[in-house]
Amino acid sequence: MSIFDTDQKLPELELSPLQKERLEYRPSICDSLQNLEGIDFQENGLPLTDAAIVPSFTQLSYRKTVIFAKSEKQCAPLKVGVVLSGGQAAGGHNVISGLYDALIELNPDSTLIGFLNGPGGIIRNKTLEITKELLANFRNQGGFDLIGSGRTKVETPEQFKAAHHAVNENELDGLIIVGGDDSNTNAAFLAEYFYSLGCKTCVVGVPKTIDGDLQNEAIELPFGFDTACKTYSEIIGNIARDCISAKKYYYFIKLMGRSASHITLECALQSQPNLALIGEEIEAKKMKLSDVVQQLADLVKDRSKLGFDYGVVLVPEGIVEFMPDIRALILELNKMLARGSADAVMLERTFNALDKINYVISKLSAETRDSYKLLPQDIQLQLLIDRDPHGNVQVSRIDSERLLMQLTRELLTRTDPSIKFSCQPIFCGYEGRSSLPSNFDANYCYNLGRLAALLVARKRSGFMVSFGKLAKPVDSWEPRVTPLVAMLTVEERDGKAKVVIKKALVDLKGKAFADFAQKRTTWRLKDQYCQRGPIQFFGPSELTDTVPLSLVLNRG
Amino acid sequence: MSIFDTDQKLPELELSPLQKERLEYRPSICDSLQNLEGIDFQENGLPLTDAAIVPSFTQLSYRKTVIFAKSEKQCAPLKVGVVLSGGQAAGGHNVISGLYDALIELNPDSTLIGFLNGPGGIIRNKTLEITKELLANFRNQGGFDLIGSGRTKVETPEQFKAAHHAVNENELDGLIIVGGDDSNTNAAFLAEYFYSLGCKTCVVGVPKTIDGDLQNEAIELPFGFDTACKTYSEIIGNIARDCISAKKYYYFIKLMGRSASHITLECALQSQPNLALIGEEIEAKKMKLSDVVQQLADLVKDRSKLGFDYGVVLVPEGIVEFMPDIRALILELNKMLARGSADAVMLERTFNALDKINYVISKLSAETRDSYKLLPQDIQLQLLIDRDPHGNVQVSRIDSERLLMQLTRELLTRTDPSIKFSCQPIFCGYEGRSSLPSNFDANYCYNLGRLAALLVARKRSGFMVSFGKLAKPVDSWEPRVTPLVAMLTVEERDGKAKVVIKKALVDLKGKAFADFAQKRTTWRLKDQYCQRGPIQFFGPSELTDTVPLSLVLNRG
Repeated sequence: MSIFDTDQKLPELELSPLQKERLEYRPSICDSLQNLEGIDFQENGLPLTDAAIVPSFTQLSYRKTVIFAKSEKQCAPLKVGVVLSGGQAAGGHNVISGLYDALIELNPDSTLIGFLNGPGGIIRNKTLEITKELLANFRNQGGFDLIGSGRTKVETPEQFKAAHHAVNENELDGLIIVGGDDSNTNAAFLAEYFYSLGCKTCVVGVPKTIDGDLQNEAIELPFGFDTACKTYSEIIGNIARDCISAKKYYYFIKLMGRSASHITLECALQSQPNLALIGEEIEAKKMKLSDVVQQLADLVKDRSKLGFDYGVVLVPEGIVEFMPDIRALILELNKMLARGSADAVMLERTFNALDKINYVISKLSAETRDSYKLLPQDIQLQLLIDRDPHGNVQVSRIDSERLLMQLTRELLTRTDPSIKFSCQPIFCGYEGRSSLPSNFDANYCYNLGRLAALLVARKRSGFMVSFGKLAKPVDSWEPRVTPLVAMLTVEERDGKAKVVIKKALVDLKGKAFADFAQKRTTWRLKDQYCQRGPIQFFGPSELTDTVPLSLVLNRG
Repeated sequence: MSIFDTDQKLPELELSPLQKERLEYRPSICDSLQNLEGIDFQENGLPLTDAAIVPSFTQLSYRKTVIFAKSEKQCAPLKVGVVLSGGQAAGGHNVISGLYDALIELNPDSTLIGFLNGPGGIIRNKTLEITKELLANFRNQGGFDLIGSGRTKVETPEQFKAAHHAVNENELDGLIIVGGDDSNTNAAFLAEYFYSLGCKTCVVGVPKTIDGDLQNEAIELPFGFDTACKTYSEIIGNIARDCISAKKYYYFIKLMGRSASHITLECALQSQPNLALIGEEIEAKKMKLSDVVQQLADLVKDRSKLGFDYGVVLVPEGIVEFMPDIRALILELNKMLARGSADAVMLERTFNALDKINYVISKLSAETRDSYKLLPQDIQLQLLIDRDPHGNVQVSRIDSERLLMQLTRELLTRTDPSIKFSCQPIFCGYEGRSSLPSNFDANYCYNLGRLAALLVARKRSGFMVSFGKLAKPVDSWEPRVTPLVAMLTVEERDGKAKVVIKKALVDLKGKAFADFAQKRTTWRLKDQYCQRGPIQFFGPSELTDTVPLSLVLNRG
């Protein structure tokens, strides 16, 4: 028996005094969304749609974009479903609260249901009615546990049918999908599918991901990023203070963020480490693994000359995938190890680990051979043995901070054996996804939910909600509704053309990166660690209502 | 060039808004220490001294204990030195602030110097004068970086001489040693040595250690424990909330605390995990490694029956050292591998790893053989190869949470292969030592420093400062001064008789453990995770002025 097949039993979590205090927090509502009844949308031009995706979206591509307009419409009772998709991000419960409060405000007879444990809950039509009483214990709280989350996708024709069945069965006016790039691409396909069937259910997307890589002209920031970065920066600041007190260790701190280094950049701006690796820069500069290791060794050597045998280094978890040589190596290995190939057969017949490795070395191109040889033996072997169901090398399994530590140590031992280099790996990960949301995320999510409710009330489907001017006080935030299709494009993923929302990378020409690039020269040798400390929910608003520094710099 | 030989260059740390706010916090002073001028000490009976230590302390053993008395003494200007010893603990800078403010209050011409980077700074007579201006940026701040810390001990006759030279050279009336059990044992030896030379410098000890194992009748708690446990409980609470949202992983969270499990017990009371291993209980129940693994597998199985394939488990870092079989194994291995023994020679001649392991297995006693065989191969080998300078096995290098994860997975794969067991290791460590001190630690340390200053003013040497009734509001805390010799005893460590302060273990008959033991039956299968959230410095005092739960239960 799995929990996914049982009806949701809400755990009886015991609330801490702070959690109870946070239940009382009233999120601010931006001026433009104060009076929902007075707002409608009017149609505008066609969305700017990538030609490659038009064939997949014959309905949505020709639906007009909308702009805000005045209204005096009464709203009939609404029935809306909400689903949380993918990894947790602080504020999910506030999207639901904002949605619920707005639906009741629009018509007190409206109802909200949650699909349980992610999109799988839509397919299986597993739901929970979200009542005022139930919500009372989840306002401004972390986690996604009110309705759970999951990574199942609505992909096959049967799953689309099941989703249609679920929204029909529940007579839904709207389906709110809270997720990252993949889930919102999914939302677009669902909206298209429902349209084509004449189904009344409006699909609305809400941008969520701590990684921060769901950004574009319309979306300044996905929710959860702020709280995650504040939680990580607290830890990094504490460790940096410990570092400079004991003067003993290098801390290699790995941060979440596989496809982009937004978290690392924001945490660097907040905590001012000696070095922060930014994947996008490594890619742009075509830095190989050996170049990065050399950069690290140089840091250690230069600091050692000043008497500092300690330091703080930030590493985004996906760093190795930005290195051109490692990327080429992975491609070659995937080809070489493809099921049934002569090399794969040969390797399967080779039992001794060293023989396997030597065989691979003999077969690699001159370009990638050295990079493979640089890897520690256990990782060399891991890449050959540990493969995903499609037979691909699982580069994401490499602990990047430990790899860089080990290679830096080896290089220093060879070149400068007298230098003291003691090192500790740290991982800032799961603790940042379900923290109590910062005021910023609590407010942002509440307004996102509110705007999503309005779209459903006005029967607009296939839109993503977001806000502009997020770096300003909540009052002046600008609600935005953007056609999902306008965010879609076609990319090659795993060798296949796929409709996707492009992941937003760190903009090396943006102001946030420029600010970092200018300051880091000082941070490298002069310790200017900054300890932001734990998130504060009381006290002066300069403490409680801060927004991400990279947001202020890039969009402020 | 090492930093230890240069004069201290204070790093130009950039203060965050919260750090700046904390500079303004005024620690509360307990009622009894409000008017220092009015307090003196009068002699009482002889200290209760362990007979075995009397020969080492012919001076201190016969110095009388003291009790508080009234005074109207004027105090001449004082010159005092302070040193921070060992691992960081939140509040160190407040010991220094309390000390400084009290010295100035007693006589405005008093001066305070810090010995740099730990007791090594005494030996090398490296000092920094601590002025009001300098302190202004360190009040209520984390870390030990104003003067640094270190683990060098004053041990050899030359080092004692050097220490005497340093206190003479600086004409010190007092030397305040802030440290754990070892450093305070050291303080006793220094006090004895100075007495025997007729040196005027009074030595005073201040109890510090996040591990919480420096406790006794006089000391309710060392400083730093509260902030560390709050920092860890924030992380654990966040992870538990993430766990119950995704319902995907078991988190094995390792917590600092090698010799005792106080941190794990306190964090368990605060965060209510499904299981928390307490080393002292494992020792009392003579649980072997295989028993603990069985207990973990049973947890996973029982939860799986209810549909819960996720959970939170707390593991103190020193857990394996509490298991009788592992302890016996280590003793046998240390004997077997002793330099020059026939076995050691044999093993050195054996190159193949598996052959080494098999040789050891053939030589182990029946009692320990199975436990060694249970260990994963890399740890079996690590125990043979990775030894400390004395040739001893480095059991502390074993990552206990990863070991237990791996063995639990192996057991489940053998016995219940259908059960889903995905697991993530987490380590709560360095980020808890240099956090911004909680109000409790900020107040506690400030009062400790104040009391230490008073002892020097009244020319009392060889005492430890502490407070009673810590679970009550600061006003009613009771200052205590206890002869260091009364805390000393003789223990066998590494095969030698040694004067030590006994490490305080978790009291299995205490109320804190009883409370935990009663509640954990519920927590095991019913998720009652509690998310305490980040330390708050503003807002209701129920949030800002909490004290450790185990303190309230055991001493409240």
